[in-house]
Order: sequence, then structure tokens, then C-alpha cells
Amino acid sequence: GALGGVGLGLGLWQQAAMAASEGDEDEKEEEELRQRFMAPPVSGLRELRRRRRELRSRMELLIMETQGEVCRALAALDPGAAFAVDTWERKEGGGGVSCVLQDGEVFEKAGVNVSVVFGLLSEEAARQMRSRGKSLKAKDGKLPFCAMGVSSVIHPKNPHVPTMHFNYRYFEIEEADGTKQWWFGGGTDLTPTYLNEEDAVHFHKTLKEACDKHGLKLYPKYKKWCDDYFYIKHRGERRGIGGIFFDDVDSPSKEEVFQFVKSCAKAVVPCYIPIVKRHCHDSFTPEEKLWQQLRRGRYVEFNLVYDRGTKFGLLTPGSRIESILMSLPLTARWEYMHTPPESSKEAEILEVLRNPKDWVH
Amino acid sequence: GALGGVGLGLGLWQQAAMAASEGDEDEKEEEELRQRFMAPPVSGLRELRRRRRELRSRMELLIMETQGEVCRALAALDPGAAFAVDTWERKEGGGGVSCVLQDGEVFEKAGVNVSVVFGLLSEEAARQMRSRGKSLKAKDGKLPFCAMGVSSVIHPKNPHVPTMHFNYRYFEIEEADGTKQWWFGGGTDLTPTYLNEEDAVHFHKTLKEACDKHGLKLYPKYKKWCDDYFYIKHRGERRGIGGIFFDDVDSPSKEEVFQFVKSCAKAVVPCYIPIVKRHCHDSFTPEEKLWQQLRRGRYVEFNLVYDRGTKFGLLTPGSRIESILMSLPLTARWEYMHTPPESSKEAEILEVLRNPKDWVH
Repeated sequence: GALGGVGLGLGLWQQAAMAASEGDEDEKEEEELRQRFMAPPVSGLRELRRRRRELRSRMELLIMETQGEVCRALAALDPGAAFAVDTWERKEGGGGVSCVLQDGEVFEKAGVNVSVVFGLLSEEAARQMRSRGKSLKAKDGKLPFCAMGVSSVIHPKNPHVPTMHFNYRYFEIEEADGTKQWWFGGGTDLTPTYLNEEDAVHFHKTLKEACDKHGLKLYPKYKKWCDDYFYIKHRGERRGIGGIFFDDVDSPSKEEVFQFVKSCAKAVVPCYIPIVKRHCHDSFTPEEKLWQQLRRGRYVEFNLVYDRGTKFGLLTPGSRIESILMSLPLTARWEYMHTPPESSKEAEILEVLRNPKDWVH
Repeated sequence: GALGGVGLGLGLWQQAAMAASEGDEDEKEEEELRQRFMAPPVSGLRELRRRRRELRSRMELLIMETQGEVCRALAALDPGAAFAVDTWERKEGGGGVSCVLQDGEVFEKAGVNVSVVFGLLSEEAARQMRSRGKSLKAKDGKLPFCAMGVSSVIHPKNPHVPTMHFNYRYFEIEEADGTKQWWFGGGTDLTPTYLNEEDAVHFHKTLKEACDKHGLKLYPKYKKWCDDYFYIKHRGERRGIGGIFFDDVDSPSKEEVFQFVKSCAKAVVPCYIPIVKRHCHDSFTPEEKLWQQLRRGRYVEFNLVYDRGTKFGLLTPGSRIESILMSLPLTARWEYMHTPPESSKEAEILEVLRNPKDWVH
């Protein structure tokens, strides 16, 4: 398969550095960011530094930094493979940076995508973006908006290494009278092929610790939201063993929610990477690989039939389809009437997907 | 993978024969039907014979007969494999017969499903069933309905043998004042991995001949409807090279539409089987198999994101998920940013999927 990337990180950065080389007052800071990010941010480094106190800028820096952290951590585990880095523009406003590692030794497909888009929304589209469907008053029927986020799905090769997904996003919409509505959404969740209790506890515990710093009610509330959201209704199963999920969060304050989101984003590497390290050299049988492929099929079913982000993306004109469908696994399988034998390892994980458990208290 | 079938055709028939062995006046006819069908029909042979003049009965016999014809024709090409035959009941009324051949020499997955369901519909559900959304007057908010059909997807192993889908269905809904609304829907369409013009012409020509017997306007109208229906909007591609598709057809008369549907159903074997025979021993490269897997991914995208029947099925309580998702291929693949080189065989089929052609005039 041809990778249509515009080049690797270095090439992009060299171009950006050449374009912005003269009279830069804070080259040291810029150099640092350059090392941390996978590509130049959509809004430009200078612009972000100039408006460094605005939440939009801080969020854009956070999602770029998260993308860099996660990509570097994954690449370190899969030395033979490299991330293809695509920067893309959206005709209607904004753009993004997509990083994809495909067919590596450890990872079958790992994608980490940043997008920062802005422009005008119809009242109808604006209402659909908010899960609670608040009404918004538009000037001449159009609402200026800005949406940004980092989203990622990691599908490893080894069936003993779980798939992981995370997404952290921020929205702003300006109403006719100039008031700005804003909210955050996000989450991190795990989809193992086989249950490993130690991994499940480590994953949930790391997320709980990140949440607890911002209030003890957050983890239980967002853990349940995650179990409810990633439900494949027609199968009566969840997609995985959950994690946290939240949407439409706009209280207590912009600053406090941002700090919470930052803690969650910083928890991605510590909650997942140790699990990959622990199992990426585990031996596995062809039967275990086959069960993984069937579970990948369920992953596709959830993403294409239920996931709000995917559906919203597919229906939005001008959205970048390849970045949206990056979440699909490299390979998947559907067998008619496949039912694992009772008391098998396959039945064990199904039981947990049907009846979610509490992993930490 | 375990196949949860309740047995092969013979076993089911032996059971049915034992149950209905005494005093049967028309054993010869029953014996004939037994040889033609894969399992006893949902409504029972005697009941169907007793009400043989009613269209519902004639349609049920037609879909059972079509299932038998197609399964026998496929099985003859894949002698090592056998259809698993499942009969199932729907708690709310009716049931079905699902025939699936999986992991054969010629066919990766071939499913032919009959369902005959009845009961009560809400006004809302009834409106959704009709693509034109006609309003229906219910007694106490509920409408007695009957829906029956045969549907099938055949995914061959060899990338030079195209995937084929067909579906023929009949609906009846009774309004509060006792008037019955009825309509037919259906279609047959082809999804090749590589373009073969001779196959495309044969397929469309056979369908056109079946249509032309019932009016010269039918084929052009239903060919266009097919191209419009099987459109993967987010890709800007059709699922395949089309065929015919129609829905909500209730004129000129029940008898005439039934005769048209019968001609279409009888055309399934002659339009597809010669193509399978011609190519099932073609040699192919690993690259050709890979392209097939990517096209299978698109097939999954269409079925899960757009197909009305699949979406309706997944959202309907009490529907049989395994029979609905039988349409998904055994294996599929998604690569990030895969673009075939210009002037390749892969680009050739993409061109036709983006700009549908007329294959017969």
C-alpha cells in the first residue's frame, strides 16, 4: 500500500524553520517545541506564542504535545517502523496533522491525529455537535466555531496486547450576541482480545489517579459514561473494558476543565505503554490471532454503526475521511454464528464485555 | 469457528416428514418441494398449499425456491464445502431459514437467507419501512404486518470472481379500516475486485432481459436506482458495478409486480454462476488478494453506514443479528491512504465505481 504522506517530521520542520528563520526572539523555546511536536501546529508556532494566554492556544499546544509524546513512546517500542506524518488543510478553515504507523513489528496500525478546524456552522450542525442539544442563537443563521482535538487508535499485532483509543477535544461557538459557548470532551479506553486483570486494574487505576486530582466524583461518573457509550447494542456487548468518557463538560470553569483534560492527556502514556511492554513479546497461537480478528470486526461495527465522532465526520462535507477512518483496524474478520466454548478464555472476556466490572474502588 | 447450525437440509426434512407423515393427500407435490427447498418453509407446506392462490403463499414458495436454486448452484461449484442450514423462530411472529457456506474452496462466505416475519408494527416503524414514508392509519396505534424476503451475499475467495448480492422482498400492512397496503422491493448487483467488461455486460444483459419481459422502462429505471442506492458517499464511490434495485413498488398490479419479481429471482443463477465458473480457477497474485481485501473493507463501510436493510435490522428488537450481518465478508482490510497507481488495474475499477457506465443499451 502506498502511503500518501507529505514527509516525515524532520522534513516538515526544516521547511517551517526556513520559512520563519529571521529575527525570531525566542528561538530556544521554539526549538524545544520543535523537538516535542510531530509537525508545525495548524495555527503556527508564533501565533500560538503570541496568544499564549488564550485557552484555545494552550489547548492546541496540549494536543500537539500529546500527539508527540504518544508517537515517540510507540515508536520506541517498534524500532523498525516509522510514523508517516501528513499535514493537511481544510478548505473551509483549519487543518491537521495525522501520524500513522502501519504494519510494524509491534503495531498493526497506530494512528494519532490532531485537527484544528474553524469556520461557520449552521444552527442544525451546531446543535448536533453538542450531545445535550442546547439551542444556539445564530446571526444570519451561521455560527462561528472552532473545534480542536487529538484522537488516536492503536491496534497492536499481538493478541495479548490490547487495542487502546483516546480522544481529547475542545469546542467554541460564538452566538449572535457575542457570547461564547465552550465545552470539552474526551476519554481513554481499552479493548483487550483476552482479559488480563492486572492490566485492567493498572489501566483504570492510572486513569482514576488522573481524575481524582480534580474531584473524587469524576472517575466513577466518567467510568460509567464510558461503559454506556461504547455499547454495541445489536450484540449486547461493550467494545472493550472501558476507561473514562465524557462530553459536553463546561463546568466548573474553563481553566479547571482544561487542567482536568490535561491530566487525562498526560495519563495516556503511563496507562497504556507499560501494558504494551509487558505483552508485546508474549507468544500466541493461530487460534488466538483468529479471535483477535473477530474482535476487530466488532470494533469496526461499533465505529461505523454507533460512534458519534465517526458518524459526524462521515456526514460533514470537507472532512478528511482518511483521518476519520484511521481508527479502523488493518484487518478484521466476521464468522457466521461464532460462539466460543463455555469456560474458555474467549468466553471470559465476553462475560466482562456483557457485564462491565469495577476495576478499582 | 463453531457453526451453530441445527443441521443440514436432509436432517430437517426428515424431522418434518416424520411429523407430517400420515394421511397426506398430495405427497408427490410435497416430495417435489422437499427436494427443491433447503428446509421446511416458515408457514408450513400444508398451509402454503391450502392457501396456494394467495400472493403471500406464492411469494413464500418463490423465495424458498430461489434459496434452494442458488444454494444448489453454489454448492455444485464448491464440492468440498456444505451449507449449514439454520431454521430460526422470531418470538414476535414468524422466522426464517439461513443457509451459510463458510471458508470453502471457491467461496469465502456465501449466505442465502429467507425470512418470513409478521406481527404488529408501530405507526413510526411502519412509516420507516416504506422508503417514500407514506402515512398509515393504525387501529389503537398498531398495524398488523407481514414482511418476507430472500437475501444473499456471496463473497468468493478468488479476486477475479466478483461478489454478488441479491434480495427480493414483499410487505403487507393492514390499516385500521381493513385496507391492505402492499409493496415489493429487491435487486441484484455485482461487486468485482477487478473490472472484466465481458462479465459486466453478461450480468447486466441477463438482468435487462428479465426486466424487459415486463416493460422496457424497467431496466433503465432500476439500473439507475441501483447506482444511486449503492453509493458510499464519504468515498465518492459506488459499492460495485451495479445491477438493478427497486423499492416500494406497488403498481401496476400485485400480480404483475409479482411476475416481474419472479423473473428477477429466476435470473440470479444465470446472471452470476457463469461468471463464477469462468474465473474460479484463475490464478492470482498476493497483491490482487490484498486489493480484494481493501475492497471488502469498502463493502463493510457501505453495509454498516448506509444500507437501509442492515440499519433497520440492527435497530429492530428481536431481529436475528447473525442473519443480518451474514452479509459481511469473512475478512476485510483498511490501509491508511491507499491509492492505486495511475493506469493500474486497481485504478481502472475505481474509475468505473466513481463514474458508473451503461453496460447494455
